[in-house]
Amino acid sequence: MNKTILLSNDDGINSSGLNALIGALDHFGNIFIVAPDREQSACSHALSIHRPLRIDKISTNTYSVDGTPTDCINLAINGILKDNKPDLIVSGINKGENLGDDISYSGTVSAAIEGTLLGIPSIAISLEGRNDYNYESSLHFSAIFAQYVLQNGLPRDILLNINIPKLSLQEIKGIKITRQGKRIYNDSIVEKVDPRGKKYYWIGGNELGSIEIENSDIDALKKGYVSVTPIKLDLTDYNFINFLEKDFLKIKEHA
Amino acid sequence: MNKTILLSNDDGINSSGLNALIGALDHFGNIFIVAPDREQSACSHALSIHRPLRIDKISTNTYSVDGTPTDCINLAINGILKDNKPDLIVSGINKGENLGDDISYSGTVSAAIEGTLLGIPSIAISLEGRNDYNYESSLHFSAIFAQYVLQNGLPRDILLNINIPKLSLQEIKGIKITRQGKRIYNDSIVEKVDPRGKKYYWIGGNELGSIEIENSDIDALKKGYVSVTPIKLDLTDYNFINFLEKDFLKIKEHA
Repeated sequence: MNKTILLSNDDGINSSGLNALIGALDHFGNIFIVAPDREQSACSHALSIHRPLRIDKISTNTYSVDGTPTDCINLAINGILKDNKPDLIVSGINKGENLGDDISYSGTVSAAIEGTLLGIPSIAISLEGRNDYNYESSLHFSAIFAQYVLQNGLPRDILLNINIPKLSLQEIKGIKITRQGKRIYNDSIVEKVDPRGKKYYWIGGNELGSIEIENSDIDALKKGYVSVTPIKLDLTDYNFINFLEKDFLKIKEHA
Repeated sequence: MNKTILLSNDDGINSSGLNALIGALDHFGNIFIVAPDREQSACSHALSIHRPLRIDKISTNTYSVDGTPTDCINLAINGILKDNKPDLIVSGINKGENLGDDISYSGTVSAAIEGTLLGIPSIAISLEGRNDYNYESSLHFSAIFAQYVLQNGLPRDILLNINIPKLSLQEIKGIKITRQGKRIYNDSIVEKVDPRGKKYYWIGGNELGSIEIENSDIDALKKGYVSVTPIKLDLTDYNFINFLEKDFLKIKEHA
């Protein structure tokens, strides 16, 4: 295959997860990397429209951007790779899982959302854990999913959010196609005092567990499976449309 | 009613849209304002977890935060209003519409997403336009929707994305319950050179139009209606799950 593959992430251009991915995918085609110059975790789908951005060419096909993962994908597709649109975007491998509602904060997933918005089949890959990342299993599955999407594409406006459990290849039980789960967090804000006596706050929030949802991404990882959640750009809740229509009809009648 | 209502936005604490909202809603209960200290447009659902945040008490019930709209809602619900959880969160009135896929970049909508994640019925309100905002119509409808949600609540994990056309109250044709539409942008990146001869880039993108989708938010505004799109936190594409399951079964069989 002579394909073009764009890699990005939210851990920054020097992340071991991104660098490991290059070796796992370079036999599929030409790899381009456009990634943030520093860590951008929890930056969500932020797009820098109120300030200029700098692009730094690090080496052949490798660029860092002083912006968010969304900025990187936008500059790559509409600028750097304007005349050589990629066949696939892979965002990751993220250090730490992106599961449940947390994906709405995720820069890793947002890079794949931006790619999808711009019409490129895109996947986000995250590895479970908090430190000590062993990429062996995640590289194996990254190659499987990259090959799948290069061969089959993805429907317009759908991306894949892929999470790999913190297990060896032998320990992983297989792949599960999953739905977005739901974690439970406590609501801690940590209040501290700076050297000049002024208060400041850290947003905390420890995970307390998760709500039991059959076939959720959280559930799959717990049971030792790779989870693949198809994510759509259309956020409309169609079921609630009819309900609201009736209610607002009522409101009008009462007015 | 003796309710508690939390207001926020992404245009910043001094925005005329936020200030106008106070007067329109204060007869429904106690108003609290926790908003960014400066404009945070296109910041999406970014949460500041890698740096401390400052909260500045501006006046009774009014606080500014040196962070994103998501930070504001999180600090309000888990901190400032920890023992007095609001009955409703209203994010807005945003200067400029939030329609179609653009809502994924929107700080205004993300504040309502964060409220919803934290279990509070939340709505985002945006006023069509680029400058010269006349809030009369949007205040009228803000009161209607605030009252509706205070009386009826919202289903768990659903928020309302409300857009008001740039029309007088007499010109507005009514309310339409809509789905997320789709705009078409051009893909311009503007390249410039700084005084020291180094290149920099602005993410541009002018709207070229929109894809015709019946009953979309974009369509409703075009026709002079207020659009109300129910948005869900669950991004899973359930239709594609079965398709992927068959495909990955095939892959396993071939392996």
